[in-house]
Amino acid sequence: MQPKLAPLAECPCARAVETVGEWWSILILRDALQGLSRFDEFERSLGIAPNMLARRLKHLTQSGLFERRLYSERPKRYEYVLTDKGRDFFPVVVALIGYANRHLAPEGASLLLAERETQRPIVPIVVDAVTLQPVTAEGATVIAGPRASTELRERLAARHAATQARSN
Amino acid sequence: MQPKLAPLAECPCARAVETVGEWWSILILRDALQGLSRFDEFERSLGIAPNMLARRLKHLTQSGLFERRLYSERPKRYEYVLTDKGRDFFPVVVALIGYANRHLAPEGASLLLAERETQRPIVPIVVDAVTLQPVTAEGATVIAGPRASTELRERLAARHAATQARSN
Repeated sequence: MQPKLAPLAECPCARAVETVGEWWSILILRDALQGLSRFDEFERSLGIAPNMLARRLKHLTQSGLFERRLYSERPKRYEYVLTDKGRDFFPVVVALIGYANRHLAPEGASLLLAERETQRPIVPIVVDAVTLQPVTAEGATVIAGPRASTELRERLAARHAATQARSN
Repeated sequence: MQPKLAPLAECPCARAVETVGEWWSILILRDALQGLSRFDEFERSLGIAPNMLARRLKHLTQSGLFERRLYSERPKRYEYVLTDKGRDFFPVVVALIGYANRHLAPEGASLLLAERETQRPIVPIVVDAVTLQPVTAEGATVIAGPRASTELRERLAARHAATQARSN
């Protein structure tokens, strides 16, 4: 079951969650980012029911992460090609892989990220684009953006006050 | 509905998805990383049904992302404190926020990441810890890790051959 997002509409994290839709979608995107594009390729890779796969591909296409492209006239067959918006989801997949290899593989990793050219393993970290310093829960916070509503500004101020009070 | 993960057990991305469990969990973690810890704080922030919230908190505690701690004797009340394993989920939340602000906020962002000290906005990117170069779909791939099964090694080799053939 997914969140009802009405009270969360201004949260970018919730917005991303809503756009991608379901966990399956992350795994479809993971495969697409590795070069898969055809229905039967996704089906085989994921072991997913065809109706479920069709539904997820349709949602991701409507959300603008895939473009459907005809690759065979007879029979009519489509492939699903990542758009820039779809390709840019890569850092999320990378962050999930980094997390899993750090915390969910106590006996060692089965799969590693690597440079495509050299096959050298990569350890992904999230940094600020300007300072290249890691973004940590201790060092980062959220602030109102240019389009924040009055209500959001008030909620942020209230939460800020609450967590300040707690840490004193 | 969540993936049946049997054929995906070796994929770190699928493992992460399975551990966190549901979309709600990401939003709970997002709030916890901002300093919330009490049941009623999560309930108010998310507008989530209490039984659903209790279930998610239990799952995240069993998965080792939260530690339950007594903070009031009468009445007995617990708070949910992030463990290192929970806190380290932050980069995933950050990557989702970065994605959303880049692609899902055409009229401008409501919420921005910022340095806690200075309130300077942060633009998060995912880089390799060694080279500090961005990890991109074009430049990165996945390779077998030390614990990869024979089957996984074969699948990776087959996929590699297939995408090579396609791009030629």
